[in-house]
Amino acid sequence: MILTVTLNTALDITYRVRSLRPHTSHRVSDVIERPGGKGVNVARVLAALGHEVTVTGFAGGATGRVLRERLADTRGVTDALVPIAGPTRRTIAVVDELSGDTTQLNEPGPQVSPAEWAVLLGSYADLLAAGPSAVALCGSLPPGVPVGAYAGLIRAARTLGVPVLLDTSGEPLRRGVAARPDLIKPNADELAELTGSHDPLRANQDARRRGAQAVVASLGAEGLLAVTPEGRWRAAPPTHVHGNPTGAGDSAVAGLLSGLVEKLPWPERLTHAVALSAATVRAPTAGDFDRAAYEKLLARVSVTAA
Amino acid sequence: MILTVTLNTALDITYRVRSLRPHTSHRVSDVIERPGGKGVNVARVLAALGHEVTVTGFAGGATGRVLRERLADTRGVTDALVPIAGPTRRTIAVVDELSGDTTQLNEPGPQVSPAEWAVLLGSYADLLAAGPSAVALCGSLPPGVPVGAYAGLIRAARTLGVPVLLDTSGEPLRRGVAARPDLIKPNADELAELTGSHDPLRANQDARRRGAQAVVASLGAEGLLAVTPEGRWRAAPPTHVHGNPTGAGDSAVAGLLSGLVEKLPWPERLTHAVALSAATVRAPTAGDFDRAAYEKLLARVSVTAA
Repeated sequence: MILTVTLNTALDITYRVRSLRPHTSHRVSDVIERPGGKGVNVARVLAALGHEVTVTGFAGGATGRVLRERLADTRGVTDALVPIAGPTRRTIAVVDELSGDTTQLNEPGPQVSPAEWAVLLGSYADLLAAGPSAVALCGSLPPGVPVGAYAGLIRAARTLGVPVLLDTSGEPLRRGVAARPDLIKPNADELAELTGSHDPLRANQDARRRGAQAVVASLGAEGLLAVTPEGRWRAAPPTHVHGNPTGAGDSAVAGLLSGLVEKLPWPERLTHAVALSAATVRAPTAGDFDRAAYEKLLARVSVTAA
Repeated sequence: MILTVTLNTALDITYRVRSLRPHTSHRVSDVIERPGGKGVNVARVLAALGHEVTVTGFAGGATGRVLRERLADTRGVTDALVPIAGPTRRTIAVVDELSGDTTQLNEPGPQVSPAEWAVLLGSYADLLAAGPSAVALCGSLPPGVPVGAYAGLIRAARTLGVPVLLDTSGEPLRRGVAARPDLIKPNADELAELTGSHDPLRANQDARRRGAQAVVASLGAEGLLAVTPEGRWRAAPPTHVHGNPTGAGDSAVAGLLSGLVEKLPWPERLTHAVALSAATVRAPTAGDFDRAAYEKLLARVSVTAA
């Protein structure tokens, strides 16, 4: 079992409008709702790849109820979310029919009480004791969760010898890295914010010095740059992939985790991650991946020493 | 008891952002949720004026549950909504902190089945039999409800001698007017669409010929223009009122209904409607009215023969 932790889960809502024009009124032609938050997205992709996944984190309110109802319908995903009083946030993606461009509105998330945080820590300890093959800690922290939260969760996993991946940003990333996670997957902006360097290779090396045992940076259309104890690689899709990049980073995380628990060599892990990521950009629904494209892309990802 | 009918109820959500910029990502700083749809707004204002109000229409899904929980907390409002399978729509108002301007995103509403529509008709007949002092039919029709729905609801009310106000637009307004409602309250655009005339007085007279026994047109900052069997009046606020016009039309409907059931002369009904409408524009929260402003404005509305 792979465990993903999403402290700030979300009900992701996609609206289709003709063209978003500020300060006017719009009739939404199409509404899609689905469970979200980075760790939930990672879990959905892992489940689609055939892994058993357990999701934890917080869910509350009417939006939390909808999230959990939808998760219950997702085969391969076990819901271990901790109920809280505050409502799970919504994210709204407004897609223009004319341009295909997306405007994003993200609610901040519920206030989490110290008692609720304590319940999550207890539940997390129980889930770790069940012996997951890996843990992924994903996304932003809701209000009320201590900024050093991920550092504590990383230490608990490492104590039990469970490999742990961290995918977050800002101060939670900075604090988390110091707790020596096995792997971080920042994008270029997150990596630059962490290290102060806009040179990806230099920044990856700096992030390792700060504590991360391996760093896989996602560089958008250029693919991934990995700096690991076993070597350094660049992995790139065959051509520029057109489509919606929403969820591409989460699919890359799922590919890395899948490769990790299957003990694949790093170049193969990166190949899976890049192919999944590109197949997500190509999929018609944001955050899903196009399985046929994924399988074709696997043979066409280039991995080179960096 | 006053009965308001809102076939397309809504969960109204207000987001505050710094400045809405299409095709970028926004952190929402503030989220407000409340029960909405025109008839629900009218009911809230009537209840605040001391009337007992019953609301009917449809509610369903997680959003419908939240709507009903919130209505249960509204003193003076009795919930007689009919449960349906489809989810109550959301409306999202995105308010720019910098300019104060609002961008509106309106979901279309749930699909209503013929069986659900039949349940509503039965429930409406029972509510009419209880002898309300007036009925207000408000807002758009959700998918699945026949376009002539309001005409049928108007005839049922008239058969029992219950005065009926209609506030809608487009084809539902056109069909409804032909069923001879006691009063319609179109805005300038709705009236022009109904009659083909952009001259408000001429259009009001035309709408009466089409079947409406009285027509009160809301002309924005210029106030109201009423053409009734008892006479014709213009009613205007003392000065241009600055603020958020959301809900001002619904407050005008509430003022007209309140005056109707209290059997006030038309000039007094119009005075109440204009004062409530202007006090709604002035209120800090969209759709609420500023009670102190309302009471001051009552003495300052001008009503003149038209």
